[in-house]
Amino acid sequence: MQPQLLAVGELAAGQTLTVPVYRFIGSDPAAPSVYIQANVHGAEVQGNAVILQLLRYLRQYPPKGNVTLVPLANPLGINQKSGEFTLGRFDPITGENWNRQYLDNQLPLSHWLSEHQGYSDRELVAAYRQALIANLQTRLQSPWGVTTGQRLAYTLQLLATEADIALDLHTGPKSCRHLYCPEYQRHAAMQFSIPFTLFIPNLFGGAMDEAIFCPWWRLSDYLASCGRQFEIPVVAFTLELGEQELIDMAQAQQDAQGILAFLSVRGVIAEPLLPLEMPRYGTHLKNYRKFHAPQAGLVQYLVAPGSLVEQGDPLVRLLRLDLPESEQEQLLTAPEAGAAILHFASAAVQQGTELYKIMTQLTEIS
Amino acid sequence: MQPQLLAVGELAAGQTLTVPVYRFIGSDPAAPSVYIQANVHGAEVQGNAVILQLLRYLRQYPPKGNVTLVPLANPLGINQKSGEFTLGRFDPITGENWNRQYLDNQLPLSHWLSEHQGYSDRELVAAYRQALIANLQTRLQSPWGVTTGQRLAYTLQLLATEADIALDLHTGPKSCRHLYCPEYQRHAAMQFSIPFTLFIPNLFGGAMDEAIFCPWWRLSDYLASCGRQFEIPVVAFTLELGEQELIDMAQAQQDAQGILAFLSVRGVIAEPLLPLEMPRYGTHLKNYRKFHAPQAGLVQYLVAPGSLVEQGDPLVRLLRLDLPESEQEQLLTAPEAGAAILHFASAAVQQGTELYKIMTQLTEIS
Amino acid sequence: MQPQLLAVGELAAGQTLTVPVYRFIGSDPAAPSVYIQANVHGAEVQGNAVILQLLRYLRQYPPKGNVTLVPLANPLGINQKSGEFTLGRFDPITGENWNRQYLDNQLPLSHWLSEHQGYSDRELVAAYRQALIANLQTRLQSPWGVTTGQRLAYTLQLLATEADIALDLHTGPKSCRHLYCPEYQRHAAMQFSIPFTLFIPNLFGGAMDEAIFCPWWRLSDYLASCGRQFEIPVVAFTLELGEQELIDMAQAQQDAQGILAFLSVRGVIAEPLLPLEMPRYGTHLKNYRKFHAPQAGLVQYLVAPGSLVEQGDPLVRLLRLDLPESEQEQLLTAPEAGAAILHFASAAVQQGTELYKIMTQLTEIS
Amino acid sequence: MQPQLLAVGELAAGQTLTVPVYRFIGSDPAAPSVYIQANVHGAEVQGNAVILQLLRYLRQYPPKGNVTLVPLANPLGINQKSGEFTLGRFDPITGENWNRQYLDNQLPLSHWLSEHQGYSDRELVAAYRQALIANLQTRLQSPWGVTTGQRLAYTLQLLATEADIALDLHTGPKSCRHLYCPEYQRHAAMQFSIPFTLFIPNLFGGAMDEAIFCPWWRLSDYLASCGRQFEIPVVAFTLELGEQELIDMAQAQQDAQGILAFLSVRGVIAEPLLPLEMPRYGTHLKNYRKFHAPQAGLVQYLVAPGSLVEQGDPLVRLLRLDLPESEQEQLLTAPEAGAAILHFASAAVQQGTELYKIMTQLTEIS
Repeated sequence: MQPQLLAVGELAAGQTLTVPVYRFIGSDPAAPSVYIQANVHGAEVQGNAVILQLLRYLRQYPPKGNVTLVPLANPLGINQKSGEFTLGRFDPITGENWNRQYLDNQLPLSHWLSEHQGYSDRELVAAYRQALIANLQTRLQSPWGVTTGQRLAYTLQLLATEADIALDLHTGPKSCRHLYCPEYQRHAAMQFSIPFTLFIPNLFGGAMDEAIFCPWWRLSDYLASCGRQFEIPVVAFTLELGEQELIDMAQAQQDAQGILAFLSVRGVIAEPLLPLEMPRYGTHLKNYRKFHAPQAGLVQYLVAPGSLVEQGDPLVRLLRLDLPESEQEQLLTAPEAGAAILHFASAAVQQGTELYKIMTQLTEIS
Repeated sequence: MQPQLLAVGELAAGQTLTVPVYRFIGSDPAAPSVYIQANVHGAEVQGNAVILQLLRYLRQYPPKGNVTLVPLANPLGINQKSGEFTLGRFDPITGENWNRQYLDNQLPLSHWLSEHQGYSDRELVAAYRQALIANLQTRLQSPWGVTTGQRLAYTLQLLATEADIALDLHTGPKSCRHLYCPEYQRHAAMQFSIPFTLFIPNLFGGAMDEAIFCPWWRLSDYLASCGRQFEIPVVAFTLELGEQELIDMAQAQQDAQGILAFLSVRGVIAEPLLPLEMPRYGTHLKNYRKFHAPQAGLVQYLVAPGSLVEQGDPLVRLLRLDLPESEQEQLLTAPEAGAAILHFASAAVQQGTELYKIMTQLTEIS
Repeated sequence: MQPQLLAVGELAAGQTLTVPVYRFIGSDPAAPSVYIQANVHGAEVQGNAVILQLLRYLRQYPPKGNVTLVPLANPLGINQKSGEFTLGRFDPITGENWNRQYLDNQLPLSHWLSEHQGYSDRELVAAYRQALIANLQTRLQSPWGVTTGQRLAYTLQLLATEADIALDLHTGPKSCRHLYCPEYQRHAAMQFSIPFTLFIPNLFGGAMDEAIFCPWWRLSDYLASCGRQFEIPVVAFTLELGEQELIDMAQAQQDAQGILAFLSVRGVIAEPLLPLEMPRYGTHLKNYRKFHAPQAGLVQYLVAPGSLVEQGDPLVRLLRLDLPESEQEQLLTAPEAGAAILHFASAAVQQGTELYKIMTQLTEIS
Repeated sequence: MQPQLLAVGELAAGQTLTVPVYRFIGSDPAAPSVYIQANVHGAEVQGNAVILQLLRYLRQYPPKGNVTLVPLANPLGINQKSGEFTLGRFDPITGENWNRQYLDNQLPLSHWLSEHQGYSDRELVAAYRQALIANLQTRLQSPWGVTTGQRLAYTLQLLATEADIALDLHTGPKSCRHLYCPEYQRHAAMQFSIPFTLFIPNLFGGAMDEAIFCPWWRLSDYLASCGRQFEIPVVAFTLELGEQELIDMAQAQQDAQGILAFLSVRGVIAEPLLPLEMPRYGTHLKNYRKFHAPQAGLVQYLVAPGSLVEQGDPLVRLLRLDLPESEQEQLLTAPEAGAAILHFASAAVQQGTELYKIMTQLTEIS
């Protein structure tokens, strides 16, 4: 099976940048369609290994629903080296985060619905999807052009908009596995094999998952305000699969199993697969707190990602060899209880560097 | 005259980063106070030379109003080299634009005003300013800390919030002189010696000028909605003084004269100085369009910043030596008439690179 | 005329990097063959425009000798952005200068010549060239592999080794036009339209020109030590064509004329073209001095590249807004008389930054 | 105990860069003096933690010999962030490796010795050391200035030249502990607690260790050629202490114990400490081979640093999701047997990236 190559940009010296696209046509037209991409942030490579495992599975067990797999989704980010590491989180020219440039695909709902009166839910879904796609295409053809990041993002968004389920595979810097899940799909947190979940509201911040579900959530909300109940037919998640700059095929096999379990629950694949049993915790996005270095220095991270911490627990040992003896070693402690989800990738930090991200106000999910 | 050094951050190896602050105490307590900073974007150095010229003037002709001058306002940005140039537009760790991290200083107006009933305008101004300052200080002392960029931005914002007039001196990449001016102060566009002006709305996008005037504009709007007329007592402008990576002391002398003319009109300095006579053009910010490269390649910029262009005028010659002869040289043309304000700094561009920024829908200001 | 695309590397996401190669087959087998490349340093783009002008000329006036033109010779360097500028001088992973990675193509001369006894000069040239090429190919096939920069450099060197004349088109940061010329070809300094020349010795420092001429110079020296006179049959030059990050097609036309004049003198093209008359100055490479910033600060460059300076002439105005008034503006002066050839590209410099490069001990060439 | 702060440079915005220096005056004038520095490469931070442990030990057990400890030796490198990691291996402006800029401190030996006839070995050592120091000072005061990297390197070299033993603490990217040891001190490989040793010749390549021992080795060789036996009185080592971007205080305690054992053997400290028993392997520097990626792709490193490998053993799993199924996963194997000492830090590699460094032709040391 050979990927199609989708053009997403051009480098200064003229090379066309392409992204591989793998498409499985499902056996059951009624089954949901799926879009999975990986590596939009250049250093977050593990999702590609997961896609390779999914490819192997789906070749052996063809899916019921259409499945589109897009690894290596951001060639500009993947190829952007600065020193030994991949500087792939933002456009090196503008600083814009590659995962904040998707289109806030807003249609004028009142007007649009007035033109689609009498449509069944199914018809509405099809027409609305076409309108979203048309809007993306129009933006890509602006006479003023679009930015490098927008061209990439909108091109991927076009593919994802065609699907009922979109998964965006990321990783943290040094991180445990966790999930971004829209509030209207809280039950999905039990359907993956991921211990920590952030529930996110209907607010567009530029990311892929939001770009996919916000337009449908808005439509559903608008229809509700008109007295019509309309179940949101599309869903999107961001999966954070461990740490960046790491490929591990054995772990990728487990990650793929978790995704397949979700696809099984949703009827995309025929085989009955179950998510792993594990304690699961979640919190609302607004309780996801960043702990910033109050001082600069060298740091030893004392809490492994995925650990629960109490308020006052030591998080970081801070070394300052330029200061007098009494200030050469300090402990920085957790301002609040929660789960330490990820920490910074480097051991040398400026004042203000984000040292840890902590889910506070945790609740157990069941 | 020696600057005070204001601590704004710490580098990983422990060095404290400081910013020089020069303060002139005005002779007339009724005169407006002024805050001027330069070089928040690391490569935009010319404002420092302008501040040096202002320093020399003000030492010779002491001002009526208090004047605070802050050159070299972003040591992290200024010191961030990548190759020969200064990579000073965004935080190299996070990609965040240094001029998009100021606090959106929002007070709960209804509640706050209920606590300040019966205040005269003058009393309201003083109390509101104190509340804005207190809010900034609270943020800086969060137990979760603030980011590197927020620490810098909020620290500068504290100084600027004390003033009645705030000027933020920037430059473009390759650029003509132009001004960002809030809509409620359109007449100010005639008071500087700057030919092009962008009129900006009451929307906070993270920049210094907005961070200063938005809270007061909101207060004024709110009071208007309550039936009380309240003139916005504070104003802030961003001045774009030519191109980055360039120091020119003779040009800085002219730029300083232009600023002094404005300060003269506003009663900050006693000497009667007049802005230069020149044709002036302006447009609303929403008409400030970016022209992105439809293809990658090597480019020759054909239109000098500050030139008026018609729709269809050639803007850029694009070379593609990797393509067949017929495609090796192309012309890219203006999608719309306007004034070419600035162009990109490099001659090698990706697909999507912002080649030119053009003010469209120009009107002459008089 | 469409270029062949020569593979020179692969990006992490899998894209093949290619370089366009244009070949003209000469009408006269006895005429020298020529290799011209441009843009090995990513920001030094003007040579591409010169090659485009050469292409147009040679299509109209086919050459006597074979001519190979290689624009955009370093796609990795050209595409390496960091902020708005091109960070194209060194490998972003290792820091190695792209123009210091060519192979020091050394054959064991005593042994090799013992195997080629009785060869005429012409036969020796052919055999030696084949041996040099074979050596390069062997290196490229090492079981341990070669570095990214070596793969690029050796691949280009293979093409250049086939030619009798190799020209490597570079630019300075902010620079006047100047020439690197091997000492044994001093007369060539009069054959280009370039006012300043550096004469370089038979020492390999990693650059393309040295990589081409050193093996032949060594052979000639070795044969001389054996009592056989052998004229060095190959020559290579580096041309520095003004400043980086600039495309100017009109200037490129002049630069191309200068190169064509040289090719005319050497019998590569049939048309009689003459280099421009101009005062020409030269010095030995060891007299090419770098003037480093004794202090950090903001700088205004006071001497335009291409100007002659006397000892003690002001070179740079240095601003230090963080210091007391008396130290806020200083002048830095030339330690020795000479010609200011180029200066640094940025106006903000660290202590030790190379501010100017100055040819000292100048002599007029005629 | 508070460090002295040694000025080593100035940032563009004016900040002085300083390095902390800790000095212990030994109790026994006959004991050797020691200089230890860490973190010349910005990301290689673990040596600072080791120095902190040494500081604690030496405060408790004052040494017999003078000891100078210099952590955080390269503030420019430590503070150079690009994305989340530290881009501290080379000067971001020039690409020059921070550990290749020390002075090749060559004196004209024949002339110099003729001026020091009749000196005893002890007198010769003192006079030669003074001459080396004077030479460094002269370079630092050149009217043309020195580069940023030279200023740092020469300033550190001045301190190190005063000592009899110099240790430069580095780390690899992902690496096991290993030692660079000059050939004339092969027995030292048993005196540290480090399993792998590279024996290096009397060739100056720009590094600190070479900069310290080469001048003395040359003197000894020269005197030997004159028939005088002169034991090399000075030694320098580079210790590679694991991986970059990591602080681990427990491991630092072990690393410090290893260094103290060496200092105990050499009589610098009074306490009898012994190096750990372990199998030790070594090879000559010329057998230290780099394995470069034959293709680009995503990589899983299969061999942990410190492992012995046979020829043909799999080193790396290479993923290529852009290629047809049969080429999506490949294994890259060791071209030769040896010990895998370190591997690259990132999982996404270009063609030519140095994947592993392998000591070949290993011998057991005892």
